[in-house]
Amino acid sequence: MNLKQMVGIEASKYVKDGMIVGLGTGSTAYYMIEELGRRVKEEGLQIIGVPTSIASKKQAESLGIPVKTIDEVSHVDLTIDGADEIDPQFCGIKGGGAALLFEKIVATYSKKIIWIVDQSKMVPALGKFPLPIEVIPYGHQQVLQRFDTLGWHPILRKNDNGEVVVTDCGHYIIDLHLEKIDDTHKMANQLDKIVGVVEHGLFLDMVDTVIIGTEEGVKTIHADKN
Amino acid sequence: MNLKQMVGIEASKYVKDGMIVGLGTGSTAYYMIEELGRRVKEEGLQIIGVPTSIASKKQAESLGIPVKTIDEVSHVDLTIDGADEIDPQFCGIKGGGAALLFEKIVATYSKKIIWIVDQSKMVPALGKFPLPIEVIPYGHQQVLQRFDTLGWHPILRKNDNGEVVVTDCGHYIIDLHLEKIDDTHKMANQLDKIVGVVEHGLFLDMVDTVIIGTEEGVKTIHADKN
Repeated sequence: MNLKQMVGIEASKYVKDGMIVGLGTGSTAYYMIEELGRRVKEEGLQIIGVPTSIASKKQAESLGIPVKTIDEVSHVDLTIDGADEIDPQFCGIKGGGAALLFEKIVATYSKKIIWIVDQSKMVPALGKFPLPIEVIPYGHQQVLQRFDTLGWHPILRKNDNGEVVVTDCGHYIIDLHLEKIDDTHKMANQLDKIVGVVEHGLFLDMVDTVIIGTEEGVKTIHADKN
Repeated sequence: MNLKQMVGIEASKYVKDGMIVGLGTGSTAYYMIEELGRRVKEEGLQIIGVPTSIASKKQAESLGIPVKTIDEVSHVDLTIDGADEIDPQFCGIKGGGAALLFEKIVATYSKKIIWIVDQSKMVPALGKFPLPIEVIPYGHQQVLQRFDTLGWHPILRKNDNGEVVVTDCGHYIIDLHLEKIDDTHKMANQLDKIVGVVEHGLFLDMVDTVIIGTEEGVKTIHADKN
């Protein structure tokens, strides 16, 4: 069993009968969804999944996990998702997989959040991983120019064929190559105010529990949100 | 000649040869675009129009005004647009016509902004006109619930057939029936931070000149942006 799988299975233990569960996106979340599917089939686990991407929705449905959109449920009990970087204050960067908008919407309306990562994602400061910004296609060249002026080293995300990546919601992604974010809250505030920015990949003061795959096994830490 | 037409013609006088001009949306902007079209045809005025909606784009093209998107120009010299309310501090509400996102993007990247309105739009305080908020369809029910909890009296905008209005960019509009906004900057800050909100109809500290149609004729006032 690989580390991602171990972490995914550990996280799924937090899911109880009757829960509405936010289903994250990415390679570690994949194993968590697989495990939930197994429990639904083999243990008769009764849950509703709220997927954060088309990919997670398809996977959940193929496993027989009943899914609803965030608008079809009154609340989400628990969201389990991956992260691209997590700092010692439990702030994170997400969006490497271009699903940050739906992930942030589901996380925002979720009572509890668990992030599942491998050790390499735990960093002393955010920013080495390029910060993904979801932007409106109309005006994105102006936004790129503004980011550049601000010294944020923006790159419009393209796929291997050189085509601009379009998110599930029809937006573009600009990755900021910052190397180090000195003040994550200040950065988030600045980004929130920029016209043309739909959402950014800074997930601050949100997570309750982080489950980490290490060479010594699975490690669980709880964030102090106060 | 009606008031809206007089105001539209007055505003078009600010447009000079060689300018890149943001073309607003709405019933007053309509007359401004008509007048620019006339000047292009009859006076050989050389401009490039940057429309803020599909409707304005079609109108400009039908009049022979060359148009480009905001991403095809290096900058915008002047944007002329309508407004739904303007307070004594020259802050405004826009978005009654559901074009607020593209209007705000073009305005943000414009060197100079003129608003054209009739007297009734000049108000002592913003908020009697419902404040339009452009939101991501995914999660809009959760956003509605949050707005309601905040006491903002939200209503999802629907057309006369009872169908949810979809913006040019594929989003929904929620109108906040606030009656009076005590602190426009605080309100804008709060809205900027809410996940699921793409943009809001508060246009603060942006406008340079307001041209007002009054019963006594056209009145022009200049904002002090410092």
